[in-house]
Amino acid sequence: MKLSARNQLQGIVSEVRKGAVTTIVKIDVKHPAVISASITNEAADELGLKVGDQALAIIKASEVIVGK
Amino acid sequence: MKLSARNQLQGIVSEVRKGAVTTIVKIDVKHPAVISASITNEAADELGLKVGDQALAIIKASEVIVGK
Amino acid sequence: MKLSARNQLQGIVSEVRKGAVTTIVKIDVKHPAVISASITNEAADELGLKVGDQALAIIKASEVIVGK
Amino acid sequence: MKLSARNQLQGIVSEVRKGAVTTIVKIDVKHPAVISASITNEAADELGLKVGDQALAIIKASEVIVGK
Amino acid sequence: MKLSARNQLQGIVSEVRKGAVTTIVKIDVKHPAVISASITNEAADELGLKVGDQALAIIKASEVIVGK
Amino acid sequence: MKLSARNQLQGIVSEVRKGAVTTIVKIDVKHPAVISASITNEAADELGLKVGDQALAIIKASEVIVGK
Repeated sequence: MKLSARNQLQGIVSEVRKGAVTTIVKIDVKHPAVISASITNEAADELGLKVGDQALAIIKASEVIVGK
Repeated sequence: MKLSARNQLQGIVSEVRKGAVTTIVKIDVKHPAVISASITNEAADELGLKVGDQALAIIKASEVIVGK
Repeated sequence: MKLSARNQLQGIVSEVRKGAVTTIVKIDVKHPAVISASITNEAADELGLKVGDQALAIIKASEVIVGK
Repeated sequence: MKLSARNQLQGIVSEVRKGAVTTIVKIDVKHPAVISASITNEAADELGLKVGDQALAIIKASEVIVGK
Repeated sequence: MKLSARNQLQGIVSEVRKGAVTTIVKIDVKHPAVISASITNEAADELGLKVGDQALAIIKASEVIVGK
Repeated sequence: MKLSARNQLQGIVSEVRKGAVTTIVKIDVKHPAVISASITNEAADELGLKVGDQALAIIKASEVIVGK
């Protein structure tokens, strides 16, 4: 499947921190950049996310703010 | 100023494509990753974005989808 | 690939309206519901979206507002 | 009140799972589609969301990713 | 109808700038704050937005970035 | 640093409610408007957000829904 989301960064899961209903996942996309994602626990469980997994950080262009 | 947004990727503006009211900006954050941002023309003008500028791609953790 | 996004609705593309840099895509997910998506022209072109295509509307749970 | 959000799906609340500060709400919009929403506990309490309630899942077109 | 979105700011439409498929709407919520919204033309037409209208700017808490 | 985000409202932090991995921050931007933001605990800690702080609520135009 191809996605319309313009930004799809491949990396390795480096941290999975589970809260009550939300999980914070960190994906090391290329040193030194690490992408943080906040997803539901249900999603984290369904994907079985754990440190060392290959994963993709997917971000729509309309969600990106530009700073200069 | 510090921002709560977890993801702040430094890069170089590599493309600025202006539409009627929306501008697509590409920021080369580290080869081969390029981040696309869709922002208002007004914002692009106010920041004076042009190819070669240093810029920051800023993304909230709650906007990131994880694929695996 | 599995996605963390909780909402993935299968449907048929029923309209593709291209603007200057943004395209509005409508996906008929099940009568009478039609999902509207606003994506970049680049994404629409890359996916080759046209009326009659099978497509998926993907929405993160954190983007949904509840009304009652 | 009319809303600019293009996607407004009517359904029945089928699950309300409360976390520390975030609540996951599921709205059965039409079998077999169920929309998950992640909202603040404060919002869930203020709306008094409970299983069986009529509710609306509201989604802006710019938040929808298209997969094909 | 009550909405889960935590931020609902009442104001007066002070500008409506229509692009090819996207409209920028400005809502003067209280001097000197003006909220900019980028919505589809379809939405702007359906709501018949024009300068001087009473309108509400609705924003989910998960979309707000905090700077300090 | 200048940001492309069109909406940047200055205010005073009036509440910081920490959950398991998510923190709800309220910023009093001008009586009677209070902006709620849902951010990661990590972000709240890094900014050291506490009641009485000067803070900025930053919102992209594409995240705003218009009601009328």
